[in-house]
Amino acid sequence: MPEDQNARHAEKMRKIKAARDRMMETKTEEKGLILVHTGAGKGKSSSGFGMIMRCIAHGMPCAVVQFIKGNRETGERTLLRDRFADECRFFVSGEGFTWETQDRERDIAAAQNGWKIAQEQILDPEIRFVLLDEINIALRYDYLDIDEVVDFLLHQKPAMTHVCLTGRNAKPELIEAADLVTEMTLVKHPFRDGIKAQIGVEM
Amino acid sequence: MPEDQNARHAEKMRKIKAARDRMMETKTEEKGLILVHTGAGKGKSSSGFGMIMRCIAHGMPCAVVQFIKGNRETGERTLLRDRFADECRFFVSGEGFTWETQDRERDIAAAQNGWKIAQEQILDPEIRFVLLDEINIALRYDYLDIDEVVDFLLHQKPAMTHVCLTGRNAKPELIEAADLVTEMTLVKHPFRDGIKAQIGVEM
Repeated sequence: MPEDQNARHAEKMRKIKAARDRMMETKTEEKGLILVHTGAGKGKSSSGFGMIMRCIAHGMPCAVVQFIKGNRETGERTLLRDRFADECRFFVSGEGFTWETQDRERDIAAAQNGWKIAQEQILDPEIRFVLLDEINIALRYDYLDIDEVVDFLLHQKPAMTHVCLTGRNAKPELIEAADLVTEMTLVKHPFRDGIKAQIGVEM
Repeated sequence: MPEDQNARHAEKMRKIKAARDRMMETKTEEKGLILVHTGAGKGKSSSGFGMIMRCIAHGMPCAVVQFIKGNRETGERTLLRDRFADECRFFVSGEGFTWETQDRERDIAAAQNGWKIAQEQILDPEIRFVLLDEINIALRYDYLDIDEVVDFLLHQKPAMTHVCLTGRNAKPELIEAADLVTEMTLVKHPFRDGIKAQIGVEM
Protein backbone atom coordinates (compact mmCIF):
# COMPACT_ATOMS: atom_id res chain seq x y z
CA MET A 1 0.00 0.00 0.00
CA PRO A 2 1.45 3.46 -0.86
CA GLU A 3 2.24 5.65 2.13
CA ASP A 4 -0.63 8.14 1.78
CA GLN A 5 -3.09 5.28 1.31
CA ASN A 6 -1.64 3.68 4.46
CA ALA A 7 -2.14 6.90 6.37
CA ARG A 8 -5.71 7.26 5.13
CA HIS A 9 -6.41 3.67 6.17
CA ALA A 10 -4.94 4.24 9.65
CA GLU A 11 -6.98 7.41 10.09
CA LYS A 12 -10.15 5.64 8.97
CA MET A 13 -9.56 2.80 11.41
CA ARG A 14 -8.86 5.29 14.20
CA LYS A 15 -12.20 6.99 13.52
CA ILE A 16 -14.07 3.70 13.58
CA LYS A 17 -12.41 2.80 16.87
CA ALA A 18 -13.29 6.19 18.37
CA ALA A 19 -16.93 5.83 17.30
CA ARG A 20 -17.03 2.34 18.78
CA ASP A 21 -15.49 3.55 22.04
CA ARG A 22 -18.07 6.34 22.31
CA MET A 23 -20.84 3.80 21.74
CA MET A 24 -19.37 1.49 24.39
CA GLU A 25 -19.20 4.30 26.94
CA THR A 26 -22.97 4.64 26.90
CA LYS A 27 -23.45 0.97 27.77
CA THR A 28 -23.64 -0.61 31.15
CA GLU A 29 -24.53 -4.18 31.76
CA GLU A 30 -26.27 -5.10 28.56
CA LYS A 31 -25.90 -4.04 25.00
CA GLY A 32 -26.70 -5.22 21.53
CA LEU A 33 -23.57 -6.71 20.01
CA ILE A 34 -21.99 -6.50 16.58
CA LEU A 35 -20.79 -10.05 15.95
CA VAL A 36 -18.65 -11.23 13.04
CA HIS A 37 -18.04 -14.83 11.97
CA THR A 38 -15.29 -15.09 9.40
CA GLY A 39 -12.46 -17.36 8.23
CA ALA A 40 -12.15 -20.21 5.74
CA GLY A 41 -13.45 -22.88 8.09
CA LYS A 42 -16.90 -24.31 8.60
CA GLY A 43 -19.51 -23.05 11.00
CA LYS A 44 -19.80 -19.36 10.15
CA SER A 45 -23.40 -19.56 8.97
CA SER A 46 -24.43 -22.56 11.05
CA SER A 47 -23.41 -20.88 14.30
CA GLY A 48 -25.37 -17.82 13.15
CA PHE A 49 -28.37 -20.05 12.66
CA GLY A 50 -27.65 -21.68 16.04
CA MET A 51 -28.00 -18.20 17.57
CA ILE A 52 -31.29 -17.78 15.72
CA MET A 53 -32.45 -21.02 17.40
CA ARG A 54 -31.51 -19.55 20.77
CA CYS A 55 -33.45 -16.36 20.04
CA ILE A 56 -36.52 -18.36 19.06
CA ALA A 57 -36.17 -20.40 22.24
CA HIS A 58 -36.02 -17.24 24.34
CA GLY A 59 -38.96 -15.63 22.54
CA MET A 60 -36.76 -12.91 20.99
CA PRO A 61 -38.14 -11.87 17.58
CA CYS A 62 -35.38 -12.12 14.98
CA ALA A 63 -34.67 -11.81 11.26
CA VAL A 64 -32.32 -13.35 8.71
CA VAL A 65 -31.17 -11.71 5.48
CA GLN A 66 -29.18 -14.08 3.28
CA PHE A 67 -26.76 -12.46 0.84
CA ILE A 68 -26.31 -15.51 -1.32
CA LYS A 69 -26.13 -16.24 -4.97
CA GLY A 70 -28.89 -18.15 -6.65
CA ASN A 71 -31.89 -19.78 -5.13
CA ARG A 72 -30.54 -23.01 -3.66
CA GLU A 73 -32.93 -24.19 -0.98
CA THR A 74 -31.10 -24.72 2.29
CA GLY A 75 -32.16 -26.61 5.38
CA GLU A 76 -32.21 -23.51 7.51
CA ARG A 77 -34.38 -21.66 5.05
CA THR A 78 -36.86 -24.51 4.82
CA LEU A 79 -37.08 -24.89 8.58
CA LEU A 80 -37.41 -21.20 9.35
CA ARG A 81 -40.04 -20.67 6.67
CA ASP A 82 -42.06 -23.80 7.44
CA ARG A 83 -41.87 -23.84 11.21
CA PHE A 84 -40.83 -20.47 12.56
CA ALA A 85 -42.42 -17.94 10.22
CA ASP A 86 -44.00 -16.22 13.23
CA GLU A 87 -40.79 -15.99 15.24
CA CYS A 88 -38.17 -15.30 12.57
CA ARG A 89 -38.47 -13.24 9.41
CA PHE A 90 -36.51 -14.64 6.50
CA PHE A 91 -35.27 -12.81 3.41
CA VAL A 92 -32.95 -13.76 0.56
CA SER A 93 -31.28 -10.81 -1.12
CA GLY A 94 -30.56 -12.67 -4.33
CA GLU A 95 -34.00 -14.12 -4.69
CA GLY A 96 -35.39 -13.68 -8.14
CA PHE A 97 -31.93 -12.81 -9.37
CA THR A 98 -29.59 -15.22 -11.03
CA TRP A 99 -26.18 -14.22 -9.71
CA GLU A 100 -24.73 -16.90 -11.92
CA THR A 101 -25.38 -14.77 -14.99
CA GLN A 102 -22.21 -12.79 -14.23
CA ASP A 103 -24.27 -9.69 -14.60
CA ARG A 104 -22.50 -7.41 -12.15
CA GLU A 105 -25.22 -4.76 -12.23
CA ARG A 106 -27.85 -7.28 -11.20
CA ASP A 107 -25.59 -8.65 -8.46
CA ILE A 108 -25.12 -5.16 -7.09
CA ALA A 109 -28.85 -4.49 -7.23
CA ALA A 110 -29.53 -7.74 -5.36
CA ALA A 111 -26.97 -6.94 -2.66
CA GLN A 112 -28.27 -3.37 -2.30
CA ASN A 113 -31.81 -4.66 -2.00
CA GLY A 114 -30.63 -7.07 0.73
CA TRP A 115 -28.93 -4.24 2.58
CA LYS A 116 -32.09 -2.12 2.37
CA ILE A 117 -34.08 -4.96 3.94
CA ALA A 118 -31.33 -5.48 6.53
CA GLN A 119 -31.50 -1.83 7.61
CA GLU A 120 -35.28 -1.99 7.95
CA GLN A 121 -35.05 -5.10 10.10
CA ILE A 122 -32.29 -3.69 12.28
CA LEU A 123 -34.25 -0.46 12.82
CA ASP A 124 -37.48 -2.31 13.59
CA PRO A 125 -37.97 -2.01 17.38
CA GLU A 126 -39.69 -5.42 17.41
CA ILE A 127 -36.58 -7.22 16.24
CA ARG A 128 -33.83 -8.11 18.71
CA PHE A 129 -31.35 -10.08 16.59
CA VAL A 130 -30.55 -9.83 12.88
CA LEU A 131 -28.37 -12.35 11.03
CA LEU A 132 -26.78 -10.96 7.86
CA ASP A 133 -25.67 -14.26 6.39
CA GLU A 134 -22.77 -14.10 3.91
CA ILE A 135 -22.88 -10.31 3.76
CA ASN A 136 -19.06 -10.32 3.81
CA ILE A 137 -19.09 -11.66 0.27
CA ALA A 138 -21.16 -8.71 -0.93
CA LEU A 139 -18.81 -6.36 0.94
CA ARG A 140 -15.71 -8.03 -0.44
CA TYR A 141 -16.79 -7.44 -4.02
CA ASP A 142 -17.83 -3.89 -3.16
CA TYR A 143 -21.45 -4.62 -4.02
CA LEU A 144 -22.08 -2.83 -0.74
CA ASP A 145 -20.10 0.10 0.61
CA ILE A 146 -18.19 -0.92 3.75
CA ASP A 147 -18.16 2.62 5.13
CA GLU A 148 -21.92 2.88 4.82
CA VAL A 149 -22.47 -0.47 6.52
CA VAL A 150 -20.06 0.26 9.41
CA ASP A 151 -21.48 3.74 9.87
CA PHE A 152 -25.00 2.35 10.06
CA LEU A 153 -24.02 -0.34 12.58
CA LEU A 154 -22.20 2.13 14.83
CA HIS A 155 -24.61 5.04 14.65
CA GLN A 156 -28.06 3.83 13.69
CA LYS A 157 -28.37 0.33 15.11
CA PRO A 158 -30.67 0.43 18.16
CA ALA A 159 -28.58 -0.03 21.32
CA MET A 160 -30.10 -3.35 22.35
CA THR A 161 -30.23 -5.02 18.94
CA HIS A 162 -27.68 -7.71 18.10
CA VAL A 163 -26.41 -8.02 14.53
CA CYS A 164 -24.35 -10.99 13.35
CA LEU A 165 -22.48 -10.70 10.04
CA THR A 166 -21.01 -13.82 8.45
CA GLY A 167 -18.79 -14.79 5.54
CA ARG A 168 -15.10 -15.21 4.86
CA ASN A 169 -12.72 -12.27 4.29
CA ALA A 170 -14.40 -9.85 6.67
CA LYS A 171 -13.14 -6.34 5.91
CA PRO A 172 -10.82 -4.73 8.49
CA GLU A 173 -13.25 -1.85 8.98
CA LEU A 174 -15.93 -4.31 10.06
CA ILE A 175 -13.55 -6.14 12.40
CA GLU A 176 -12.62 -2.82 13.98
CA ALA A 177 -16.27 -1.93 14.48
CA ALA A 178 -17.32 -5.30 15.88
CA ASP A 179 -17.67 -6.30 19.52
CA LEU A 180 -16.84 -9.93 18.98
CA VAL A 181 -15.06 -11.51 16.02
CA THR A 182 -14.64 -15.25 15.62
CA GLU A 183 -12.47 -16.78 12.93
CA MET A 184 -13.38 -20.29 11.87
CA THR A 185 -10.19 -22.04 10.76
CA LEU A 186 -10.07 -25.26 8.85
CA VAL A 187 -7.69 -27.54 10.72
CA LYS A 188 -8.44 -30.67 8.73
CA HIS A 189 -10.63 -31.34 5.75
CA PRO A 190 -9.31 -34.46 4.09
CA PHE A 191 -12.32 -35.38 2.00
CA ARG A 192 -11.04 -37.30 -0.91
CA ASP A 193 -12.38 -36.54 -4.35
CA GLY A 194 -15.75 -38.11 -4.83
CA ILE A 195 -17.16 -37.43 -1.38
CA LYS A 196 -20.04 -35.07 -1.82
CA ALA A 197 -21.28 -32.28 0.40
CA GLN A 198 -23.40 -34.03 3.00
CA ILE A 199 -27.04 -33.17 3.61
CA GLY A 200 -27.54 -32.01 7.19
CA VAL A 201 -23.86 -31.19 7.60
CA GLU A 202 -23.25 -28.75 4.80
CA MET A 203 -26.64 -27.99 3.29
CA MET B 1 7.74 -35.79 26.66
CA PRO B 2 10.36 -38.54 27.30
CA GLU B 3 11.56 -40.35 24.20
CA ASP B 4 9.77 -43.68 24.78
CA GLN B 5 6.53 -41.83 25.52
CA ASN B 6 7.04 -39.86 22.31
CA ALA B 7 7.51 -43.08 20.37
CA ARG B 8 4.38 -44.62 21.91
CA HIS B 9 2.41 -41.51 21.02
CA ALA B 10 3.65 -41.57 17.42
CA GLU B 11 2.81 -45.26 17.09
CA LYS B 12 -0.67 -44.67 18.52
CA MET B 13 -1.33 -41.82 16.10
CA ARG B 14 -0.07 -43.97 13.21
CA LYS B 15 -2.54 -46.70 14.16
CA ILE B 16 -5.44 -44.25 14.34
CA LYS B 17 -4.49 -42.89 10.92
CA ALA B 18 -4.27 -46.40 9.46
CA ALA B 19 -7.69 -47.31 10.86
CA ARG B 20 -9.14 -44.11 9.44
CA ASP B 21 -7.57 -44.76 6.04
CA ARG B 22 -9.04 -48.29 5.97
CA MET B 23 -12.45 -46.87 6.85
CA MET B 24 -12.14 -44.25 4.10
CA GLU B 25 -11.22 -46.86 1.50
CA THR B 26 -14.62 -48.50 1.88
CA LYS B 27 -16.44 -45.25 1.15
CA THR B 28 -17.45 -43.87 -2.18
CA GLU B 29 -19.61 -40.86 -2.67
CA GLU B 30 -21.24 -40.52 0.70
CA LYS B 31 -20.18 -41.27 4.19
CA GLY B 32 -21.02 -40.39 7.73
CA LEU B 33 -18.51 -37.86 8.97
CA ILE B 34 -16.64 -37.44 12.23
CA LEU B 35 -16.70 -33.68 12.80
CA VAL B 36 -14.84 -31.78 15.51
CA HIS B 37 -15.42 -28.15 16.59
CA THR B 38 -12.70 -26.94 18.90
CA GLY B 39 -10.72 -23.81 19.85
CA ALA B 40 -11.20 -21.00 22.34
CA GLY B 41 -13.56 -18.97 20.14
CA LYS B 42 -17.33 -18.82 19.98
CA GLY B 43 -19.54 -20.97 17.81
CA LYS B 44 -18.47 -24.52 18.63
CA SER B 45 -21.78 -25.54 20.17
CA SER B 46 -23.97 -23.14 18.25
CA SER B 47 -22.75 -24.43 14.89
CA GLY B 48 -23.41 -27.97 16.16
CA PHE B 49 -26.94 -26.89 16.96
CA GLY B 50 -27.14 -25.18 13.57
CA MET B 51 -26.41 -28.58 12.01
CA ILE B 52 -29.17 -30.11 14.15
CA MET B 53 -31.52 -27.51 12.63
CA ARG B 54 -30.44 -28.61 9.16
CA CYS B 55 -31.08 -32.26 10.03
CA ILE B 56 -34.55 -31.43 11.33
CA ALA B 57 -35.22 -29.44 8.15
CA HIS B 58 -34.18 -32.41 6.00
CA GLY B 59 -36.20 -34.90 8.05
CA MET B 60 -33.05 -36.66 9.33
CA PRO B 61 -33.66 -38.05 12.83
CA CYS B 62 -30.93 -36.81 15.17
CA ALA B 63 -29.81 -36.79 18.79
CA VAL B 64 -27.92 -34.48 21.14
CA VAL B 65 -25.98 -35.56 24.22
CA GLN B 66 -24.74 -32.60 26.27
CA PHE B 67 -21.70 -33.25 28.43
CA ILE B 68 -22.14 -30.19 30.60
CA LYS B 69 -21.89 -29.38 34.23
CA GLY B 70 -24.98 -28.57 36.18
CA ASN B 71 -28.48 -28.13 34.97
CA ARG B 72 -28.49 -24.65 33.47
CA GLU B 73 -31.36 -24.42 31.04
CA THR B 74 -30.14 -23.31 27.62
CA GLY B 75 -32.08 -21.95 24.68
CA GLU B 76 -31.22 -24.93 22.50
CA ARG B 77 -32.40 -27.36 25.13
CA THR B 78 -35.70 -25.55 25.64
CA LEU B 79 -36.36 -25.34 21.91
CA LEU B 80 -35.46 -28.93 21.12
CA ARG B 81 -37.49 -30.30 24.01
CA ASP B 82 -40.52 -28.08 23.48
CA ARG B 83 -40.71 -28.02 19.72
CA PHE B 84 -38.70 -30.84 18.22
CA ALA B 85 -39.07 -33.74 20.64
CA ASP B 86 -40.24 -35.95 17.76
CA GLU B 87 -37.33 -35.07 15.48
CA CYS B 88 -34.42 -34.76 17.87
CA ARG B 89 -33.69 -36.74 21.02
CA PHE B 90 -32.08 -34.70 23.75
CA PHE B 91 -29.99 -35.94 26.69
CA VAL B 92 -27.88 -34.18 29.31
CA SER B 93 -25.15 -36.34 30.79
CA GLY B 94 -24.83 -34.33 33.96
CA GLU B 95 -28.53 -34.16 34.65
CA GLY B 96 -29.34 -34.99 38.23
CA PHE B 97 -25.69 -34.58 39.11
CA THR B 98 -24.19 -31.48 40.58
CA TRP B 99 -20.79 -31.26 38.92
CA GLU B 100 -20.13 -28.21 41.03
CA THR B 101 -19.71 -30.37 44.12
CA GLN B 102 -16.13 -31.13 43.06
CA ASP B 103 -16.97 -34.77 43.58
CA ARG B 104 -14.76 -36.33 40.92
CA GLU B 105 -16.36 -39.76 41.19
CA ARG B 106 -19.80 -38.34 40.46
CA ASP B 107 -18.43 -36.29 37.55
CA ILE B 108 -16.89 -39.42 36.07
CA ALA B 109 -20.13 -41.34 36.54
CA ALA B 110 -22.08 -38.55 34.81
CA ALA B 111 -19.66 -38.45 31.87
CA GLN B 112 -19.65 -42.24 31.55
CA ASN B 113 -23.44 -42.27 31.61
CA GLY B 114 -23.44 -39.65 28.84
CA TRP B 115 -21.03 -41.74 26.78
CA LYS B 116 -23.21 -44.84 27.24
CA ILE B 117 -26.22 -42.89 25.92
CA ALA B 118 -24.06 -41.48 23.10
CA GLN B 119 -23.06 -44.97 21.96
CA GLU B 120 -26.67 -46.15 21.99
CA GLN B 121 -27.74 -43.18 19.88
CA ILE B 122 -24.87 -43.58 17.42
CA LEU B 123 -25.62 -47.30 17.01
CA ASP B 124 -29.36 -46.71 16.58
CA PRO B 125 -30.06 -47.23 12.85
CA GLU B 126 -32.87 -44.64 13.03
CA ILE B 127 -30.46 -41.86 13.94
CA ARG B 128 -28.45 -40.09 11.24
CA PHE B 129 -26.63 -37.35 13.16
CA VAL B 130 -25.44 -37.24 16.77
CA LEU B 131 -24.12 -34.09 18.45
CA LEU B 132 -21.85 -34.76 21.44
CA ASP B 133 -21.83 -31.27 22.84
CA GLU B 134 -18.84 -30.35 25.05
CA ILE B 135 -17.60 -33.95 25.15
CA ASN B 136 -14.04 -32.61 24.75
CA ILE B 137 -14.21 -31.31 28.31
CA ALA B 138 -15.01 -34.79 29.64
CA LEU B 139 -12.17 -36.18 27.51
CA ARG B 140 -9.73 -33.52 28.63
CA TYR B 141 -10.19 -34.40 32.29
CA ASP B 142 -10.01 -38.11 31.47
CA TYR B 143 -13.54 -38.67 32.68
CA LEU B 144 -13.84 -40.60 29.42
CA ASP B 145 -11.09 -42.69 27.84
CA ILE B 146 -9.97 -41.12 24.56
CA ASP B 147 -8.83 -44.46 23.12
CA GLU B 148 -12.22 -46.02 23.77
CA VAL B 149 -14.07 -43.08 22.20
CA VAL B 150 -11.83 -42.98 19.09
CA ASP B 151 -11.97 -46.76 18.70
CA PHE B 152 -15.77 -46.67 18.86
CA LEU B 153 -16.03 -43.86 16.31
CA LEU B 154 -13.68 -45.57 13.85
CA HIS B 155 -14.90 -49.16 14.21
CA GLN B 156 -18.45 -49.20 15.50
CA LYS B 157 -20.09 -46.04 14.21
CA PRO B 158 -22.47 -46.99 11.37
CA ALA B 159 -20.98 -45.90 8.03
CA MET B 160 -23.65 -43.34 7.20
CA THR B 161 -24.03 -41.74 10.64
CA HIS B 162 -22.52 -38.32 11.27
CA VAL B 163 -21.10 -37.52 14.71
CA CYS B 164 -20.10 -33.99 15.74
CA LEU B 165 -17.95 -33.55 18.86
CA THR B 166 -17.52 -30.08 20.36
CA GLY B 167 -15.50 -28.37 23.06
CA ARG B 168 -12.15 -26.66 23.41
CA ASN B 169 -8.87 -28.59 23.71
CA ALA B 170 -9.80 -31.49 21.45
CA LYS B 171 -7.33 -34.33 22.03
CA PRO B 172 -4.84 -35.07 19.21
CA GLU B 173 -6.17 -38.63 18.90
CA LEU B 174 -9.64 -37.26 18.12
CA ILE B 175 -8.26 -34.77 15.60
CA GLU B 176 -6.36 -37.58 13.88
CA ALA B 177 -9.51 -39.71 13.72
CA ALA B 178 -11.80 -36.92 12.47
CA ASP B 179 -12.83 -36.17 8.90
CA LEU B 180 -13.25 -32.47 9.43
CA VAL B 181 -11.87 -30.32 12.23
CA THR B 182 -12.73 -26.66 12.63
CA GLU B 183 -10.99 -24.44 15.12
CA MET B 184 -12.95 -21.44 16.34
CA THR B 185 -10.47 -18.68 17.16
CA LEU B 186 -11.31 -15.58 19.11
CA VAL B 187 -10.05 -12.64 17.07
CA LYS B 188 -11.64 -9.95 19.18
CA HIS B 189 -13.65 -10.01 22.37
CA PRO B 190 -13.33 -6.61 23.97
CA PHE B 191 -16.23 -6.75 26.36
CA ARG B 192 -15.46 -4.52 29.21
CA ASP B 193 -16.14 -5.68 32.73
CA GLY B 194 -19.78 -5.37 33.52
CA ILE B 195 -21.16 -6.55 30.19
CA LYS B 196 -22.99 -9.76 30.85
CA ALA B 197 -23.41 -12.83 28.68
CA GLN B 198 -26.24 -11.96 26.33
CA ILE B 199 -29.40 -14.02 26.03
CA GLY B 200 -29.77 -15.33 22.50
CA VAL B 201 -26.10 -14.84 21.73
CA GLU B 202 -24.43 -16.88 24.40
CA MET B 203 -27.21 -18.74 26.20
